[in-house]
Amino acid sequence: MVGGGRGAFIGAVHRMAAALDGEIELVCGAFSSNPERSKASGEDLYLPPERVYRSYKEMILEEAKLPEGERMDFVAIVTPNHVHYGPARMALENGFHVVCDKPLCFDMEEALHLEKLVEETGLIFALTHNYTGYPMVKQARMMVKNGDIGAVRKVVVEYPQGWLATLLEATDQKQAAWRTDPKRSGIAGAMGDIGTHAENLAEYITGLQITRLCADLNIFVDGRLLDDDGSVLLEFDNGAKGILFASQIAAGEENNLRIRIYGEKAGLDWHQQEPNTLLVKWRDNPVEIRRTGVGELYPEANAHTRIPAGHPEGYLEAFANIYRNFAHCIRARLNGTAVDPVYQDFPSVKDGVRGMRFIEKVVASSASEQKWMDF
Amino acid sequence: MVGGGRGAFIGAVHRMAAALDGEIELVCGAFSSNPERSKASGEDLYLPPERVYRSYKEMILEEAKLPEGERMDFVAIVTPNHVHYGPARMALENGFHVVCDKPLCFDMEEALHLEKLVEETGLIFALTHNYTGYPMVKQARMMVKNGDIGAVRKVVVEYPQGWLATLLEATDQKQAAWRTDPKRSGIAGAMGDIGTHAENLAEYITGLQITRLCADLNIFVDGRLLDDDGSVLLEFDNGAKGILFASQIAAGEENNLRIRIYGEKAGLDWHQQEPNTLLVKWRDNPVEIRRTGVGELYPEANAHTRIPAGHPEGYLEAFANIYRNFAHCIRARLNGTAVDPVYQDFPSVKDGVRGMRFIEKVVASSASEQKWMDF
Amino acid sequence: MVGGGRGAFIGAVHRMAAALDGEIELVCGAFSSNPERSKASGEDLYLPPERVYRSYKEMILEEAKLPEGERMDFVAIVTPNHVHYGPARMALENGFHVVCDKPLCFDMEEALHLEKLVEETGLIFALTHNYTGYPMVKQARMMVKNGDIGAVRKVVVEYPQGWLATLLEATDQKQAAWRTDPKRSGIAGAMGDIGTHAENLAEYITGLQITRLCADLNIFVDGRLLDDDGSVLLEFDNGAKGILFASQIAAGEENNLRIRIYGEKAGLDWHQQEPNTLLVKWRDNPVEIRRTGVGELYPEANAHTRIPAGHPEGYLEAFANIYRNFAHCIRARLNGTAVDPVYQDFPSVKDGVRGMRFIEKVVASSASEQKWMDF
Amino acid sequence: MVGGGRGAFIGAVHRMAAALDGEIELVCGAFSSNPERSKASGEDLYLPPERVYRSYKEMILEEAKLPEGERMDFVAIVTPNHVHYGPARMALENGFHVVCDKPLCFDMEEALHLEKLVEETGLIFALTHNYTGYPMVKQARMMVKNGDIGAVRKVVVEYPQGWLATLLEATDQKQAAWRTDPKRSGIAGAMGDIGTHAENLAEYITGLQITRLCADLNIFVDGRLLDDDGSVLLEFDNGAKGILFASQIAAGEENNLRIRIYGEKAGLDWHQQEPNTLLVKWRDNPVEIRRTGVGELYPEANAHTRIPAGHPEGYLEAFANIYRNFAHCIRARLNGTAVDPVYQDFPSVKDGVRGMRFIEKVVASSASEQKWMDF
Repeated sequence: MVGGGRGAFIGAVHRMAAALDGEIELVCGAFSSNPERSKASGEDLYLPPERVYRSYKEMILEEAKLPEGERMDFVAIVTPNHVHYGPARMALENGFHVVCDKPLCFDMEEALHLEKLVEETGLIFALTHNYTGYPMVKQARMMVKNGDIGAVRKVVVEYPQGWLATLLEATDQKQAAWRTDPKRSGIAGAMGDIGTHAENLAEYITGLQITRLCADLNIFVDGRLLDDDGSVLLEFDNGAKGILFASQIAAGEENNLRIRIYGEKAGLDWHQQEPNTLLVKWRDNPVEIRRTGVGELYPEANAHTRIPAGHPEGYLEAFANIYRNFAHCIRARLNGTAVDPVYQDFPSVKDGVRGMRFIEKVVASSASEQKWMDF
Repeated sequence: MVGGGRGAFIGAVHRMAAALDGEIELVCGAFSSNPERSKASGEDLYLPPERVYRSYKEMILEEAKLPEGERMDFVAIVTPNHVHYGPARMALENGFHVVCDKPLCFDMEEALHLEKLVEETGLIFALTHNYTGYPMVKQARMMVKNGDIGAVRKVVVEYPQGWLATLLEATDQKQAAWRTDPKRSGIAGAMGDIGTHAENLAEYITGLQITRLCADLNIFVDGRLLDDDGSVLLEFDNGAKGILFASQIAAGEENNLRIRIYGEKAGLDWHQQEPNTLLVKWRDNPVEIRRTGVGELYPEANAHTRIPAGHPEGYLEAFANIYRNFAHCIRARLNGTAVDPVYQDFPSVKDGVRGMRFIEKVVASSASEQKWMDF
Repeated sequence: MVGGGRGAFIGAVHRMAAALDGEIELVCGAFSSNPERSKASGEDLYLPPERVYRSYKEMILEEAKLPEGERMDFVAIVTPNHVHYGPARMALENGFHVVCDKPLCFDMEEALHLEKLVEETGLIFALTHNYTGYPMVKQARMMVKNGDIGAVRKVVVEYPQGWLATLLEATDQKQAAWRTDPKRSGIAGAMGDIGTHAENLAEYITGLQITRLCADLNIFVDGRLLDDDGSVLLEFDNGAKGILFASQIAAGEENNLRIRIYGEKAGLDWHQQEPNTLLVKWRDNPVEIRRTGVGELYPEANAHTRIPAGHPEGYLEAFANIYRNFAHCIRARLNGTAVDPVYQDFPSVKDGVRGMRFIEKVVASSASEQKWMDF
Repeated sequence: MVGGGRGAFIGAVHRMAAALDGEIELVCGAFSSNPERSKASGEDLYLPPERVYRSYKEMILEEAKLPEGERMDFVAIVTPNHVHYGPARMALENGFHVVCDKPLCFDMEEALHLEKLVEETGLIFALTHNYTGYPMVKQARMMVKNGDIGAVRKVVVEYPQGWLATLLEATDQKQAAWRTDPKRSGIAGAMGDIGTHAENLAEYITGLQITRLCADLNIFVDGRLLDDDGSVLLEFDNGAKGILFASQIAAGEENNLRIRIYGEKAGLDWHQQEPNTLLVKWRDNPVEIRRTGVGELYPEANAHTRIPAGHPEGYLEAFANIYRNFAHCIRARLNGTAVDPVYQDFPSVKDGVRGMRFIEKVVASSASEQKWMDF
């Protein structure tokens, strides 16, 4: 693991997600750019001191020297955006599979290079757009794919949060600090941090691609350097239209990612805060409350739930689905076996490239007087 | 009453709304452009035959001849859009107050003329943007006005319906027929029918005015002549931004008007389908479920609820609030008394003019390559 | 109208409910036992002074002298429980149909006498157990009746309110005063006031009758004289079991009547505070959200809704359904015509007698050491 | 681990819950009474073959021989009820701490013996009444404890499930088979399986103890041998009253555990299916939606949540809280350090004894003609 030392947020999430199914074991790490902090963090995690490294470079080089079966099987990168590319590149170049937090990296150039490296090395690369790991998201995707709701006409995806409604980065809050800093986050704030999740979710469920967009990004909090709110009109490759709304100044909102997809025959409605439920709004029939574990669901949904109906699964379980599927694919490759297609399902470097392009385009569109910008 | 004969929808709503409080009595009507139908409808309503007229012109002329105290006090216009201007103008010119269904009329020219007439005659004119009649909408308005949520930053108002997801106008459905017909509805479909409600609600609650917009209107159902869906980016006069989304092809949606207003300190969230609830999402405190009749509400909210907490009030009660307030104002004028300011609150011809301008602007914006259009 | 003068609650509800459909006109009243107050109340209601009476006795006698077609058609009794029997009896004896608020009267003896009088006179008697007037309650009833959910096994009906969580009757609150006073309310408090609604609703929807019960009534607020809370185990005539819970000290609850009915094939779930929704919980399929105006509903449901889907109807509309149906039955009798069976549906004196027996039995059971008491 | 082999349900839950925090490692097991199955299950779990045992007896004896630091630290018992006592007793007698699934065991005699053994050995014993592991359950408990809602008056705890609405045990369904079998489950069905959860939750949150009860247990499905539904009136040691309802024939319900607690000042309302939310219904103020991670919560709540607001946590995380706290206590004992009191919080053998007594009493009460039975 690269990053995720004391005080970090997403590193612990990755560790819990990886541990949940008993398929993956944390064996080494470079948990901080500060070697002391890295050591201390490794101790917290009961790692043998010799496998807690002072830097990701050291880790990759040293682990690569260990015999097969002993060395780490893959690298998980859980650092801020500007420290994705370095370890990802080096891991790939040294033959390690990679799990990388989103967005993929800092800018388009890095993104395209990583894409190329993954292609060249043939290594497995997972990007943790974790919201696609929820079983009812997979159910929604399969319903669209199978025509259950007819052709998609309208997509409304929104991601309001309220935690940056004040200038939190002026306090000691570490998460706020790097996410609002152009040097660490990149050219976008809210749109990069959560807008890309919304974009990825919309494309994942609908199977469509955004072809044009019209963005209006805003900075509402005085002194902030990156967008903390934005609205985007979308057009998809089948002619469907959409709205994407991401905000971190939506006072009182927690992490309220929601997507609605209206097709010719039905609408789908999914909320991340109640993820075990998918509303299916039929055109001329009562709304159905589809729930994990209840009635007939697509195998793709059932394969990503662990416990019976009414036993709520949440964010960590969805995150763990990405790790579990990634582990299945690595293990299959090691064993030379095939993977059930329902598990060959996690966001890839290609999703990462689309996310980086989304960032580039919404920033450009927001600065432009022209209405539509090609994606 | 003009319009609202057998087979109509909104006429019956107006009658129930007017009757609810025992303040208004239906005394005459021209219920249909078809004199036979008008007569039959009047009979259904227990009216004396001599006060059921063959046309609105006859009604206004004949009623004007009756002695004061006997003749009607005002005219309620519940016809399709293209038959608002004629009776409204004639009523005003003959000294009658007017209640008119929304949108105000067929085009801007008519709208401006009606506005001028109302100013000149000093008569009372109510436009039934009935959603502003709900008590919790008034609570929301007062919370914004009093700074409870701080300066408004973002407004998200949406009005999805699904009833026009198919070409319903190709069947005998009378409501679908005129609402999708440019000759009767005007230059907009969904945006005129329900988009104007959303626009009015946003301006009513926030007390702000839209200054610029960027619209994308769509026709999703083959063979339809007017927009059945649209998304609009908004800018308000205090710098706040917004999204307005109205659709009649959102399969499975009933009449799901919802508005969210995010201020510096809190967000407000109101759904028309559960109108007795207003969520107040505080920035750093738990969400409060504000309910009619519970705890301290603003007098403006309390004045528009009739029954105790937990006894749900709905659409007709909100509609009746407009009629009740309108009746209070007429009665006060007749009696030469003052009206409590909490009742001097119903949409006016000015709201109607703004609605017509909204229609004009979203249609123009949608056709333009330019991003923002001044309102 | 008997009762319902200034300061009353339910009188105004009756008036609004009666007015809504334009089928009933308030023509006279004895609005208070205080003649001055009665006069003043009549003025508020725009009644001619000669038809505002000093007492219900005067009203019934004087109205009976008026010629047919001029005199009132029926009497609406909206007084506290101890003043139901007198006017109801006198109205029936003088040939007037009656609408009476619930519970039917003060004790069993009165109840049985009223039942006998209604039978003897053949007059029409409606008891305003208004919750049975909701369209989705009628949908639920028809679903049970038609076997859609299979044989009923378990009924859970609950009616929590919180308004009497303190000794409100020690203040000036008029509603609290009489409802907690054994001299005006009868032998039960919460069980009489709202427990009877729950009992009536359970029997109405299931079509079953309670055969045995086991009650535990409580007084939680010091100084109170009648039960303010109670729980009752139920047995029904088909062997189904149930729980009935009514409380007026359930702090923070508004008027949260809810009923769940579990059959062999499905469960039904209806909340009064969101009355336009009925959840149908299928045994092996997704829960359906049945809504007024959406999809195929039973004619009995559709006949009791006035406006399209998504336009919420509430308490007054449900109440008005009782008045409207009652008016249809009176008009049909006057005209010698038949009434569509879907309208021959409002609570009768027989429901009132069962309610009075329920009160009698839960009070007796609560005082008994024996587990089950026959109903 | 004892039990939890291929085809089991709760064993996998225990393993995921134990793994989540990286504090506990599965080191050995006797996963089935069938030695072959045990071996195969151990392989699935990547255990070394020498630590996969043929029986729990073998496991405990062999592990006890291993040097400290190598041998297992505790035993987790995840077998059907009739196989709790044997391994628990033997583990305690051999000096191992124990985690045991609920209910504690098969009958009162076993329960009392285990209680005695735990006292005598001083070993740590956790019973997985996992619903007490949810952060908002802990928030509720602390709110009661600190008097935030005033003295408790009424408790309504319900646990409807629908999965046994048919004779599922007549099919191959393993879970249904043992849970409805008096030889494996004990004298109660639904009341033992889920009623004890409800009882435990009510006592845990309120800090009160049930003193008397009146039960009505039912078997609704023909051919079933144990209760599949029951309703219980409760009395608590402070005079509060309650209702407990557990059913496995509530068609269409998933795992809908809910508890409401009404105090003098407020009511609390928590649903297991949306566990991150606790409604606080104030007597005279708006309902508050308390959420994990939002605003000020008690340290006891915050200590049991892992991720920020709006990132839903579920059943496994609550379950893991029991394991994590148990692990903290074991580790502290090994290290001779103190445990933060917020972590000294998991159900104990004493909760298990109360649960067994609850089973005994509801079965006796249901068979009795007497209303109240002392607990």
